Amino acid sequence: MTAKLYCFGESGNAYKVALALTFADIEWEPIYVDFFNGGARTPEFRALNEMSEVPVLVDGETTLTQSGVILDYISSKSGKLGGRSAAERREVLRWLFWDNHKLSTQIGTTRFLANFVPEEKRPAGVIPFFQSRLKAAYSVLNTHLEGRKWVAGEAMTIADLSLCGYLYYPEPFGFDRKDWPNIDIWLDRIAAVPGWEHPYDLMPGNPSDRA
Amino acid sequence: MTAKLYCFGESGNAYKVALALTFADIEWEPIYVDFFNGGARTPEFRALNEMSEVPVLVDGETTLTQSGVILDYISSKSGKLGGRSAAERREVLRWLFWDNHKLSTQIGTTRFLANFVPEEKRPAGVIPFFQSRLKAAYSVLNTHLEGRKWVAGEAMTIADLSLCGYLYYPEPFGFDRKDWPNIDIWLDRIAAVPGWEHPYDLMPGNPSDRA
Repeated sequence: MTAKLYCFGESGNAYKVALALTFADIEWEPIYVDFFNGGARTPEFRALNEMSEVPVLVDGETTLTQSGVILDYISSKSGKLGGRSAAERREVLRWLFWDNHKLSTQIGTTRFLANFVPEEKRPAGVIPFFQSRLKAAYSVLNTHLEGRKWVAGEAMTIADLSLCGYLYYPEPFGFDRKDWPNIDIWLDRIAAVPGWEHPYDLMPGNPSDRA
Repeated sequence: MTAKLYCFGESGNAYKVALALTFADIEWEPIYVDFFNGGARTPEFRALNEMSEVPVLVDGETTLTQSGVILDYISSKSGKLGGRSAAERREVLRWLFWDNHKLSTQIGTTRFLANFVPEEKRPAGVIPFFQSRLKAAYSVLNTHLEGRKWVAGEAMTIADLSLCGYLYYPEPFGFDRKDWPNIDIWLDRIAAVPGWEHPYDLMPGNPSDRA
């Protein structure tokens, strides 16, 4: 049965899952959520996910939300993209949590405010605050990638796919790949894996729809 | 062997782990990290955790960071506080991720800025922005707890302990238990479990040290 991924192109959290499904060779189709017109806040969507967030994966009888949970499910189901020992699995999970705690969560907000909120409605002071905290996070990731090809272990895992989720988008939010050479090379490494596609090619919806 | 928890009283993320160790009957001792004087940014501490964050758990040969990972380890090791089926384990993990993505991460920053940064150094506009986003998060949790005793399944799990991590602290950050009656009762329910202690009793260090 084809898995259904509720998503929209601008969602880096959905992109993580779309990439993992693709790399794990799981058949899937996107279900577009019209986020910018309140599509994640309707009673129907809340019945699917009380957290009012994308992504949601429906795979047969199983409905899952939170990208970290879905990535873990994809890895368990496919036997791909996971850690190869208990210690490696904990290392993968560690970076998934760090991504949710420090990286993607702050990028998502910063990118949203800087690009998808009209300038006159942007709360003063908030974007620079996030950008300063994000610099510390980029530095942690860039340092970790020194001498490493992948974030955890010797092969690409769902940790790589979670952490890269927001880093291919073209809209400016203060992240410049040139400033973080290890991240830069690692992003090229992921993008060279057969099947990789840009978020706006892999999922429906992108900013030009609203231009 | 007694597990060592690197922590300090003000850290809600460390408190989650301290509570779980206590409820799971694992012998542990706190190692105080002098966070407010840079104790998490020394070369020694970075060698322990490249993410420069508390908590860190050292259990024999195993060193773990990120509260979500440590909670999962405690639950696996003790056979307590975890989901009882694959679906329940995924539900537990889902709330752990949501907590890291939307609740504790934003409370931690807001409480820090509002209480531990001198007023003249607080970035303008940031606290109200976080408080507005946090209202949406409290609402999700309060609604989820309607008719439920515990966050996932029929018993207390590490999901409850993660989500409550910052909610017992006395320093004001915009959260008033009276506004969220289901959260209020649930916090009392956790605090009534034998062995429960307030963060400033369970871990060393509290704001009066710096008064």
